Amino acid sequence: MDEPLNLVLFSGTDDKLQAAAVLTAGAAALGRPVHLFLQYWALDAFRADRIGRDHGLAPEAGPAGRKAVEVLAAAGQAPWAETLRQAKELGGVDVEACSLSMDLLRLEQTDLDPLVDGVEGVTAFYLSAGDGQIVFI
Amino acid sequence: MDEPLNLVLFSGTDDKLQAAAVLTAGAAALGRPVHLFLQYWALDAFRADRIGRDHGLAPEAGPAGRKAVEVLAAAGQAPWAETLRQAKELGGVDVEACSLSMDLLRLEQTDLDPLVDGVEGVTAFYLSAGDGQIVFI
Amino acid sequence: MDEPLNLVLFSGTDDKLQAAAVLTAGAAALGRPVHLFLQYWALDAFRADRIGRDHGLAPEAGPAGRKAVEVLAAAGQAPWAETLRQAKELGGVDVEACSLSMDLLRLEQTDLDPLVDGVEGVTAFYLSAGDGQIVFI
Repeated sequence: MDEPLNLVLFSGTDDKLQAAAVLTAGAAALGRPVHLFLQYWALDAFRADRIGRDHGLAPEAGPAGRKAVEVLAAAGQAPWAETLRQAKELGGVDVEACSLSMDLLRLEQTDLDPLVDGVEGVTAFYLSAGDGQIVFI
Repeated sequence: MDEPLNLVLFSGTDDKLQAAAVLTAGAAALGRPVHLFLQYWALDAFRADRIGRDHGLAPEAGPAGRKAVEVLAAAGQAPWAETLRQAKELGGVDVEACSLSMDLLRLEQTDLDPLVDGVEGVTAFYLSAGDGQIVFI
Repeated sequence: MDEPLNLVLFSGTDDKLQAAAVLTAGAAALGRPVHLFLQYWALDAFRADRIGRDHGLAPEAGPAGRKAVEVLAAAGQAPWAETLRQAKELGGVDVEACSLSMDLLRLEQTDLDPLVDGVEGVTAFYLSAGDGQIVFI
């Protein structure tokens, strides 16, 4: 498990981002390098002015799912951005924005939360992924 | 292909669960160990009192997709839970509920269908996944 | 990175198909074989009479996301089918339809765009995937 775990984040709803943050934190806690590649609506959720907002849930969550998420948040569950921040403090977590999605959303790196370390294209993504696993979320 | 195939099931719609069940059954038929990790809305679909219900389809299915799924079901296609049950009979299929999602949905293992073998945290998930592939569905 | 990259395409919205096409093109440009396995709504999007149509976006895109995608298309961004076509010209890209999804949608191979090379079952998918990574999109 020395190869990095490469998570391509596409979805920008809070439930999928929370799932991604937990997978990141768990891998980081085991000393495994994690490389996040932010695309589309996931990238949009990392905008500095929006990262703390409600980004909705997958449509299938329904009212009962929404309620469950709210109850857990009220009980003090860390939001996904906070879970990621803690994972980064453990070290070995690199967060990169996809350059094509930056163009799509007309963003500059200064528009993004400091959790994001840089911007890279898909070729750079593959080169740093090496033989490590790729997971699309 | 001796390493387990590790499927993280997040989505709880019947089309994605059917896709996951077919990938599981295919791998099991080839003698490859499969490890399912149930999160969020996928876990919700494994509740003993709901597993046989209609869990909807991805929004993009639309009315034509819904019709196609219903026609196939009427023609005798096994529901995903039945496909998984058959895959488990082949051996090598382990189904674990994510402990964080159990908390979110306020579930005990007795609330779940017997297809679920146990409950584990993300660290245990990674340790049993080893160098095997991780697929997020 | 000699093993093929195996992308299981399930979703049929234009944003996810574009993400898949970019991942395919990037891998092909690096000389890595790519194997696409088309299921459900992704397969539906490859119908010869529909591949050029608007297939919608993930629900979370919202009006702002829709607008961003339209602006980029108007500026000349290649649609995903064109990106895939270019990736296939680089060589090493094999596109297969899932036989179960062909049954679901009542399709024959002649109904599909020529981008699709053939039809295969899940066992054939695993055998050609070998030890290569599997990514579900």
